[in-house]
Amino acid sequence: MARKKNSSADVTGPRIRAAALRLFARHGYAAVSMRQIATEVGVQAGTLYLYTPDKQSLLFDLMQQHMQDLLAELAILPPATTPLADLENFTRFHIRFHQARSDAVFISYMELRNLEPANFDRIEALRRDYEAHLVTILARGKAAHVFELPDTKLATFAVIAMLTGVNTWFREGGRLSLDAVEEIYWQMVRKAVGA
Amino acid sequence: MARKKNSSADVTGPRIRAAALRLFARHGYAAVSMRQIATEVGVQAGTLYLYTPDKQSLLFDLMQQHMQDLLAELAILPPATTPLADLENFTRFHIRFHQARSDAVFISYMELRNLEPANFDRIEALRRDYEAHLVTILARGKAAHVFELPDTKLATFAVIAMLTGVNTWFREGGRLSLDAVEEIYWQMVRKAVGA
Repeated sequence: MARKKNSSADVTGPRIRAAALRLFARHGYAAVSMRQIATEVGVQAGTLYLYTPDKQSLLFDLMQQHMQDLLAELAILPPATTPLADLENFTRFHIRFHQARSDAVFISYMELRNLEPANFDRIEALRRDYEAHLVTILARGKAAHVFELPDTKLATFAVIAMLTGVNTWFREGGRLSLDAVEEIYWQMVRKAVGA
Repeated sequence: MARKKNSSADVTGPRIRAAALRLFARHGYAAVSMRQIATEVGVQAGTLYLYTPDKQSLLFDLMQQHMQDLLAELAILPPATTPLADLENFTRFHIRFHQARSDAVFISYMELRNLEPANFDRIEALRRDYEAHLVTILARGKAAHVFELPDTKLATFAVIAMLTGVNTWFREGGRLSLDAVEEIYWQMVRKAVGA
């Protein structure tokens, strides 16, 4: 987000990542060549290699950037005073963040299998950091007897899966606004954790 | 399930589908060739075409079979006498059915984008049939004031996403048995619908 916009390097790098994201999401990582990405961006294939050593690095960068953005935006959520308010903030944040990034969410799930082991481990570590944030909220609420939960880890998986699922069906202009969806999901999450 | 086992046609067809499922799940539909599938099965590429007209038909058959098996097994669940018992049966059934078929679940989500429009519509219709079953349970429970739900359709999406999410982290031999996971998820689902 802090990238400069006044040199061609700073414009081309983001355009390459955007094109790779679009093509990976549409056709799948394995089916997309560096040449196709270059064509989509409108540069020579050789130019691509000034920005990224190979396709694996491009995939890893996209998935790492997605997780780093997620963690950075989570970190600046206004702090709440109760576990229930924290859980509500988390719920609304998760839906909005992911809804705005459906291609990145899709490849982050689908292309895990195509990460080399060391890259996979780094993405998994970031994912665990994100989950740990929700585990902490749930554990605090459980300790305060605000939440009734048999297992905070499983509740974390359940809540995240439920919320990310909005991406598979929500369309702007459909029956419900995203605000309304957020509100309905928050009521379901609140009940699911026994609050 | 009603296929005969006493001719080579009846053995080779299922082996082709199993190989295609495995390869699509590992590498993605777009990256897998009919030749690779033939090699995996141990037959000539030409032999494959005795069983399926093309790769698209193979993908569609896999996804259709998955949905048809799901609907067939759902149909023979023992009938329950209350919406709450129906919801519990559905919850436990969904987890077990999907847990046993992780490759099929994965491609059913991931390869939707690679279905030709007419095939996509047919798979979506089967998916809606499955969702309708849960919508009906939730609507009956809501009408009987057993469930407290702002929106039965969204609750259906939320419950299905939550339950299918088990596939992304559950491993046999891990901290919890599938029985224990089923029980914990059932408690969360029950609370989420306000029962």
